Amino acid sequence: MQVAIVGIGLIGGSLALELRRSGLATELIGVEANPDHAQKAVQKKLVDRICCLDEAIDKVDLIVLAVPVNVILHLLPTVLDRVDRQVVIEVGSTKEKILQAVKQHPRRGRLVATHPMAGTEYSGPEAAIPQLFHGKNVVICDLDDSDPDAVEQVKNIYETIGSRIIYMDSASHDLHAAYVSHISHITSFALALTVLEKEKEEKAIFDLASGGFASTVRLAKSSPDTWIPIFQQNRHNVLDVLYEHIHQLKRIKQMLIDEDYEGFYKLIQEANAIRKIIH
Amino acid sequence: MQVAIVGIGLIGGSLALELRRSGLATELIGVEANPDHAQKAVQKKLVDRICCLDEAIDKVDLIVLAVPVNVILHLLPTVLDRVDRQVVIEVGSTKEKILQAVKQHPRRGRLVATHPMAGTEYSGPEAAIPQLFHGKNVVICDLDDSDPDAVEQVKNIYETIGSRIIYMDSASHDLHAAYVSHISHITSFALALTVLEKEKEEKAIFDLASGGFASTVRLAKSSPDTWIPIFQQNRHNVLDVLYEHIHQLKRIKQMLIDEDYEGFYKLIQEANAIRKIIH
Repeated sequence: MQVAIVGIGLIGGSLALELRRSGLATELIGVEANPDHAQKAVQKKLVDRICCLDEAIDKVDLIVLAVPVNVILHLLPTVLDRVDRQVVIEVGSTKEKILQAVKQHPRRGRLVATHPMAGTEYSGPEAAIPQLFHGKNVVICDLDDSDPDAVEQVKNIYETIGSRIIYMDSASHDLHAAYVSHISHITSFALALTVLEKEKEEKAIFDLASGGFASTVRLAKSSPDTWIPIFQQNRHNVLDVLYEHIHQLKRIKQMLIDEDYEGFYKLIQEANAIRKIIH
Repeated sequence: MQVAIVGIGLIGGSLALELRRSGLATELIGVEANPDHAQKAVQKKLVDRICCLDEAIDKVDLIVLAVPVNVILHLLPTVLDRVDRQVVIEVGSTKEKILQAVKQHPRRGRLVATHPMAGTEYSGPEAAIPQLFHGKNVVICDLDDSDPDAVEQVKNIYETIGSRIIYMDSASHDLHAAYVSHISHITSFALALTVLEKEKEEKAIFDLASGGFASTVRLAKSSPDTWIPIFQQNRHNVLDVLYEHIHQLKRIKQMLIDEDYEGFYKLIQEANAIRKIIH
């Protein structure tokens, strides 16, 4: 199978590695707007060569769109316009706006909308790592809008590289993703800003930062090019969860002001219930 | 050296393991108020036997206080009353109130106040793990109030088990600890509460939760018995950082409401500066 990877960053690059390793891809063509990333992707042997989008589409069997979600939104109709027998996968972290935009497209069936629940705080081709998708869940959205043969092929690809498929409609996906992924990034960005603002002694942060701090703040290293378009497309859900999160922090603040340690104790016990869900 | 571990939980138990493994301790006596924890500590061979505090103090060369900071505050004067030649280590996450309480104690010199910047979200003797302190920083506070021979002994212990010593006065310690440790726990508790409150479909959390969410929420599993007394003793600093954190989240919220993605982009770039400090 010949594959075009559009956007050879963390996700696109890691997928390229797995497609090669598993033997699923016989040729990997990269499409990359950033010349520096394009060069690094070839150097790192993530792809065999770089070419332009149109040529890549005509040449391959599978097109993977792994660009930021605003670029997916912009590119997807053009890609589908040119597609015939090929299968298109997009791997964006938001779904509703993207799938709305191509809902009526005559070639919508060739697209399989997927969200691999995998990633790190790094970006670009140098962030690509082997086995990123191993043991991770991949959401396929709005299954019924995709052609059965395209779905079969995409399921086979993800399962071959070790992922487990789950299904969701795009509206539910965006709602749940706001809770369990997007809000985590916002709290982490805000925590980094808080500490950078309040703690002028960088050496003290460095010396005292333990594993706990590092784990709550690591997502704050994430790229704004990836995340601003996600927050933009999922604004309504993210705002809803953010209101609730600020409300919870204010409850804790008020309990500290009132020295209501009994109430705060109960609140922590409630929060501990996350143990049942996240192991 | 004979050692008494008062409170055989995550920190006390892990320290017991290292003291045994390194050969520093020839006998380990446990003092533990929770009968279930006492039994498990002996079963897990963290300590050789359990006895009461007074007997343990008289018997040993080194007493490690590894109980919650409210219990340290309560026990420490009594322990120092009974101490003669022995060295006492306390390992609390707060320092100012604890050291204030024994500032004028005639045996203050036998105490070395330490904060190992190491831990996990688990507690109790079953949370004790080998090598917990390896490669971690340990803060010694108010060095000049401790006898030089006691400091030498404690430095030697921590260095033998792989830690690096740094020095700080107790007021600075509590301020910095609020920034880089205590606030992380509050954001994590609040995030867990947010998601548990808003997301009624536990299965969706379980299916969609990726490494990012897990890492921002893992501290929410932490015990209220450990953390309420920390927040209580460091209330002033924690409130100060919490005000700032809520302010940062409100800035983000307002930018989302206003759809000011340019401003939000710049904010994420500012947050990304944490890369320089946390690797």
